[in-house]
Amino acid sequence: MLRIVLVAPRNPLNIGAAARAMSNFGFPDLRLVNPYDVAFTEARSAVRSHYILEQAQVCASVGEAVSGCTLVAGTTAVGNRDLHVPLYRLEQAGPIMREHLESSPAALLFGSEKFGLSNEDMSYCNWLLRIPSREEHASMNLGQAVAICLYELKRDAALAGTRFPTPEMADAGDLERMTALLTETLQHSGYVNERTSQSTELKIRRLVRRLRVPQGDLETWLGILRQILWKAKG
Amino acid sequence: MLRIVLVAPRNPLNIGAAARAMSNFGFPDLRLVNPYDVAFTEARSAVRSHYILEQAQVCASVGEAVSGCTLVAGTTAVGNRDLHVPLYRLEQAGPIMREHLESSPAALLFGSEKFGLSNEDMSYCNWLLRIPSREEHASMNLGQAVAICLYELKRDAALAGTRFPTPEMADAGDLERMTALLTETLQHSGYVNERTSQSTELKIRRLVRRLRVPQGDLETWLGILRQILWKAKG
Repeated sequence: MLRIVLVAPRNPLNIGAAARAMSNFGFPDLRLVNPYDVAFTEARSAVRSHYILEQAQVCASVGEAVSGCTLVAGTTAVGNRDLHVPLYRLEQAGPIMREHLESSPAALLFGSEKFGLSNEDMSYCNWLLRIPSREEHASMNLGQAVAICLYELKRDAALAGTRFPTPEMADAGDLERMTALLTETLQHSGYVNERTSQSTELKIRRLVRRLRVPQGDLETWLGILRQILWKAKG
Repeated sequence: MLRIVLVAPRNPLNIGAAARAMSNFGFPDLRLVNPYDVAFTEARSAVRSHYILEQAQVCASVGEAVSGCTLVAGTTAVGNRDLHVPLYRLEQAGPIMREHLESSPAALLFGSEKFGLSNEDMSYCNWLLRIPSREEHASMNLGQAVAICLYELKRDAALAGTRFPTPEMADAGDLERMTALLTETLQHSGYVNERTSQSTELKIRRLVRRLRVPQGDLETWLGILRQILWKAKG
């Protein structure tokens, strides 16, 4: 089970946004360490994530908030602070946490909007993680940071690289029917003249072959071409 | 190059949050289709993402917003709508978009907070993508959805599964020095009695072997044990 711990959050919108993302991704266990009271009260009025904030525990210390967890990971935007624990990028941290969560509880810590996690907060962490934002603007909004971390934990790596099956394509015979209709239409429209008609037909055949026409759209295209031909003949 | 297109956004905080995430992840190209004017004006006052909103183009139609893009992907929370285009999960969409972006421009469309993308908006899309949120609460906050999609595009799949190198561990000799000091301390503290002293020594040896003591911490531990032993002897 994953516990989300917000340390000293000050903005009710961020607390609400964190709770909404937790509801979106199915991680309902929220603890707040020394939240700014007004912020927490306001956040509780957030729609739909209500149940998460109702159940949220307010703790007096980080130690209390992470009690029972066998893995504690802190989040930081700063890569070059003098860290005493390993620092992973979120892509690395995700698989490690997922594996841990299969058998044991873990906590994910987020610091306050203004200062992030303090060195004391970090001393409770087994390791830290960093969302791969740009160095020039690394600091992320708290609600967005929570959402991204939870997405990383939920994402199904096995899906990456699997593509939607390509729809069945019109075959050579289908394409030739289209070519014939289009050629006849162009002859009746004056696009093709006697002298060059043979090379034009080749051009049209190649044009049609370069299209990717899904089998399911073929009859629609043939209907359109027949209608235009009928008009061109009239 | 990736263009982010917000269709009919109404909440200035969401527009600002989208711009902040774009700055965090380094995708500065923003277009807004029929934004609620007040919202856009308010959002422009957002700190740091200012430059993205200053440069943002306001468009009258989705067609105008996606012009020049050779891949247009729409986002949707609804999986079971009668969709006429392929629907990917974000994990699948990420690699496809990244590959496309290596050579060609693409657009990522987000609908309004209340209604999402309309069927007409979707008709401009080559395919749709869905963030893997819970079915029971699929609808995400706009700013968080933008942040998650951009993270998926930036994440480095090659890093997943690579772990921080394990620190070098204390070797058998080091552990035996710890065992000896701890045993002697416990003898002086009355923890070990004559009769059971041999089996206790075995217990302590096993206890110490089950610890994972980093080589770099060894001298600190030995110093602690020596100090305690000194005190116990006194």
